[in-house]
Amino acid sequence: MPQVSQRGTIMPASPIRRLVPLANAAKNRGVKVYHLNIGQPDVPTPEEGLEALKHIDRKVLEYSPSDGLLSLREKLKQYYGTYNIDVEVDDIIVTTGGSEAVLFAFMACLDPGDEIIVPEPAYANYMAFAISAGAKIVTVPSSIDEGFALPPVEKFEELITPKTKGILICNPNNPTGYLYTMKEMLQIRDLVKKHDLFLFSDEVYREFCYTGAPYISAFHLPDIEEQVVLIDSVSKRYNECGIRIGALITKHKELKKNVMKFCQARLSPPLLGQIVAEASIDTPKSYMLATYNEYVERRKFLIDQLNKIPGCYTPIPMGAFYTVVKLPVDDADKFCEWCLESFDYEGQTVFMAPASGFYTTEGMGRNEVRMAYVLCKEELAKAIKVLEEALKAYPGRTI
Amino acid sequence: MPQVSQRGTIMPASPIRRLVPLANAAKNRGVKVYHLNIGQPDVPTPEEGLEALKHIDRKVLEYSPSDGLLSLREKLKQYYGTYNIDVEVDDIIVTTGGSEAVLFAFMACLDPGDEIIVPEPAYANYMAFAISAGAKIVTVPSSIDEGFALPPVEKFEELITPKTKGILICNPNNPTGYLYTMKEMLQIRDLVKKHDLFLFSDEVYREFCYTGAPYISAFHLPDIEEQVVLIDSVSKRYNECGIRIGALITKHKELKKNVMKFCQARLSPPLLGQIVAEASIDTPKSYMLATYNEYVERRKFLIDQLNKIPGCYTPIPMGAFYTVVKLPVDDADKFCEWCLESFDYEGQTVFMAPASGFYTTEGMGRNEVRMAYVLCKEELAKAIKVLEEALKAYPGRTI
Repeated sequence: MPQVSQRGTIMPASPIRRLVPLANAAKNRGVKVYHLNIGQPDVPTPEEGLEALKHIDRKVLEYSPSDGLLSLREKLKQYYGTYNIDVEVDDIIVTTGGSEAVLFAFMACLDPGDEIIVPEPAYANYMAFAISAGAKIVTVPSSIDEGFALPPVEKFEELITPKTKGILICNPNNPTGYLYTMKEMLQIRDLVKKHDLFLFSDEVYREFCYTGAPYISAFHLPDIEEQVVLIDSVSKRYNECGIRIGALITKHKELKKNVMKFCQARLSPPLLGQIVAEASIDTPKSYMLATYNEYVERRKFLIDQLNKIPGCYTPIPMGAFYTVVKLPVDDADKFCEWCLESFDYEGQTVFMAPASGFYTTEGMGRNEVRMAYVLCKEELAKAIKVLEEALKAYPGRTI
Repeated sequence: MPQVSQRGTIMPASPIRRLVPLANAAKNRGVKVYHLNIGQPDVPTPEEGLEALKHIDRKVLEYSPSDGLLSLREKLKQYYGTYNIDVEVDDIIVTTGGSEAVLFAFMACLDPGDEIIVPEPAYANYMAFAISAGAKIVTVPSSIDEGFALPPVEKFEELITPKTKGILICNPNNPTGYLYTMKEMLQIRDLVKKHDLFLFSDEVYREFCYTGAPYISAFHLPDIEEQVVLIDSVSKRYNECGIRIGALITKHKELKKNVMKFCQARLSPPLLGQIVAEASIDTPKSYMLATYNEYVERRKFLIDQLNKIPGCYTPIPMGAFYTVVKLPVDDADKFCEWCLESFDYEGQTVFMAPASGFYTTEGMGRNEVRMAYVLCKEELAKAIKVLEEALKAYPGRTI
């Protein structure tokens, strides 16, 4: 039988989705599973988006342009304008989710052997896309004890080699919920400028910053605008993860040209999702504010409750809707599996993402999990109760 | 400024979409452009699919499973059953269009430097996906004078090296419309078996075979079932190219596992497209038959008319809805550009895909174009008239 590729073999399974078969098995046994593993909010998609779907008056669901519908790109430009992100319509390339934006950014910027530096823990799929491109992700550890702040810039500089092509940040951060300060963003900017690097900036959680300070986009940083590759998605801000609409935004002419080749090869981003996304941009501020307030409340509730559990610790996430939690267990991978396979509390269990998959440094995050606060407070309360009981019952507890 | 990747630079621009800016400019000048360049049929999407859209009763447009909705995969299994393609639900992985199926097949089977052998002319984007995977496409030329029949098997064998991992066929063929005979399919089967290769079989035009003989899928070939990687898409059979739903089908366990890692990395295929695709499978046979009959008629019309034009020649395509046409011009790339930039006949022009982009052998297809008969007969008649006039006026004509 012919052999599969090395690439596919070394690619890690997603820490977010790897345990799905165990969760499905639990559900088949009649166990209620609280999904804290995945950033799939229970918040409704905007009415404007759902209505647009019902009024698609087309006889043929045809290809869209490879870079997306012009009307959507125009709306996106306006949207970015409200954040003082000054981009032209032609700088915006619509992609199949933020995922494809990351893949195309790596494919068009990195050759096999090239390196990018990423603070860890980091969104696990960056690794998968880097492996797809044959590139190497080099990580700078940030630590839960320092609240996942940006590691000192010297730590990045130590890792820069002739193979280094860029720095990648996710801000607000998935999985940590960390939000970079202006001071940190300027440090990153100086680094990128000094070493002539790309700055890949994943800003899909822009709407969810829990401080009053204005949001800092990579495009706000002076004098590096052609080095910025912005990754965006409508999934999280409008709670429409399933429509698979994202964007890659760049002012680097050569890069734009090359990204377009990858876009043309896959023909077009999903038409229906683009229609929903475009309509969703018109959702009133009241929708965005209600969603925001909901997360603020969930965040306070989840963090307060978690920190009450003996041996648990999580810093306050300042953005996004994730938090990394240290648990009093020997091995969070085993614990997460055990919760799904061997435990239930009154017919319920929790599905968490083991944090080890968000680190590349061996052994890091071993007693940490990522939790998404994408469930309503009542469900979160039940999930926390289940977690508390699970921690009492788990044979590998360390407290 | 940081440099883009070599990969992006060597990637060819799509011969199908490369000239889109010229077409847009022509339209902006008020010229009517007949699109023969792209496989975007004007045939309506099934009512069942369009209706399903209007009745999506979901409050949250959430992620679907990474391998697609179970209900869709079950329907697809039934659909394949009607073609005696005997696959299990778990063999079917739903992808974002057939495009992603090709990309994931290459990513999961091929490492940088690996080779696959493909008869040319071939669908241009195979090349793009191979470059994405760092793999090399090695081509065996087929020729218009032999009606694009499968080249002798010895020609394939001459190209097999230790780096060869697979053979790729597209059947019915895009761009040639060729349909492999049982004899040819068995030759391919023997080759794949003898050398323990993957057989990548792109069968997205399965519905459009213009002979009475039963369709031969790669999965019908004896004793190589674990070597077959079937690429499929609903785009063409239900005229819903924009929904971006395809499938990768394999019985190779290790491959399935590895493809799933790529699927999980990009989270999920488009939810809305899956709902439309699932409903479209229920479209009555009368819809499929009407579409089929429409293409039969267009094919006859187009081929007869083209072969009447002095210096033009095209063999009869036996499947799909494309044909490769030899034109009496010095350079089809220049001619196609000239039609869009410098020519109109009574305010109309034609957009064709230069065939050079479907060949990798330098110089091949230089006076050939690919035409898609995706327009109604009345429009095709006008397009042919325009082509005839263009050939009279073109300064580089050879007749």
